[in-house]
Amino acid sequence: MTASFASLQQHISFIIEIDKLKGVLRKNKPVTIERYENSAEHSWQVALLALTMQPFASEPIAIDRVIQLLLVHDIGEIDAGDVIVYAEGNAAEREAEERAAVERIAGLLPAPLSETIVTLWQEFEDRQTPEARYAHAMDRLMPILLNLHRQGQSWRENGVRKEQVLTTSVSKVIAACPDAGLWLQHELERAEQAYYFG
Amino acid sequence: MTASFASLQQHISFIIEIDKLKGVLRKNKPVTIERYENSAEHSWQVALLALTMQPFASEPIAIDRVIQLLLVHDIGEIDAGDVIVYAEGNAAEREAEERAAVERIAGLLPAPLSETIVTLWQEFEDRQTPEARYAHAMDRLMPILLNLHRQGQSWRENGVRKEQVLTTSVSKVIAACPDAGLWLQHELERAEQAYYFG
Repeated sequence: MTASFASLQQHISFIIEIDKLKGVLRKNKPVTIERYENSAEHSWQVALLALTMQPFASEPIAIDRVIQLLLVHDIGEIDAGDVIVYAEGNAAEREAEERAAVERIAGLLPAPLSETIVTLWQEFEDRQTPEARYAHAMDRLMPILLNLHRQGQSWRENGVRKEQVLTTSVSKVIAACPDAGLWLQHELERAEQAYYFG
Repeated sequence: MTASFASLQQHISFIIEIDKLKGVLRKNKPVTIERYENSAEHSWQVALLALTMQPFASEPIAIDRVIQLLLVHDIGEIDAGDVIVYAEGNAAEREAEERAAVERIAGLLPAPLSETIVTLWQEFEDRQTPEARYAHAMDRLMPILLNLHRQGQSWRENGVRKEQVLTTSVSKVIAACPDAGLWLQHELERAEQAYYFG
């Protein structure tokens, strides 16, 4: 096997390993399908949400960087699983667990690509750049949109209250995408009146 | 409702409409999961395949454009369904059907974003740019990789012969990503000996 073939094999090992993200189930169901969504299809949808919501961003963002952040943001779940954003738990422990997973999985790739993937994941996690903040806001917005179109399915199933959604998620949407955040406040009022919450 | 809220509603209608891509089933199964994969999770995986395989591309490509092409390349399947690349049929009719679907779905968005989505889809379909050719090659490579790791599951189920894979898919991988194409020729020999084909 040539050096190039050996390198290629590393790339393919990575792609086959991340195939497992298709099996990591989230708490939301797709709007018209009777099953839980997985983190792979969610990653695709939130990348397109970010692309299309760009006109509403509160500050200039490099959208291609946002998309790359979102494509890799959940791969740590392959080892660590998905946890609803409203769950209690040790956030630092959780982040360390996911970081170890990302290092293991990205480590299947040769350098410098392995480092590129870890850096993307860490940038998303740290929320220090406009791109990471906007990507995070989209990641919070996406399940709310699904819930608004599915009678609050994951809120009801997990006992999530409107105040939690406002504090934990809508606040971040308001910061990164003000119009969407204000619209959400309005929609969540209606959702509460319709008993969409737990 | 303000003008901004009305525009926001259009964006959200688009994102909720493309949620249906999670329900469009392909012919491949994920490597370690006993169900068919859907076109949404496939779109995510092939975008990451493109990102990581970039060092092997045969010509300079704008990888962020490639990723955007791949994120939207299958949304026409929401109306038209998925067809295996080895199926016989009228390609022009099929493309017209998908184009109509993309126009309908992208048309949920306000201009100029609606046109941006249609333009991305058409660029992918036309294969006239280096980005579209590379994206196409990745779209052909991805199901072959899954088959190589799953005893030729979709080849066996659909009666696909090695020669078809070489002619229809590997040729395009060789043009856009030569090392990967040569490696595939070698792997397909082994796959044939192991009875992975239909």
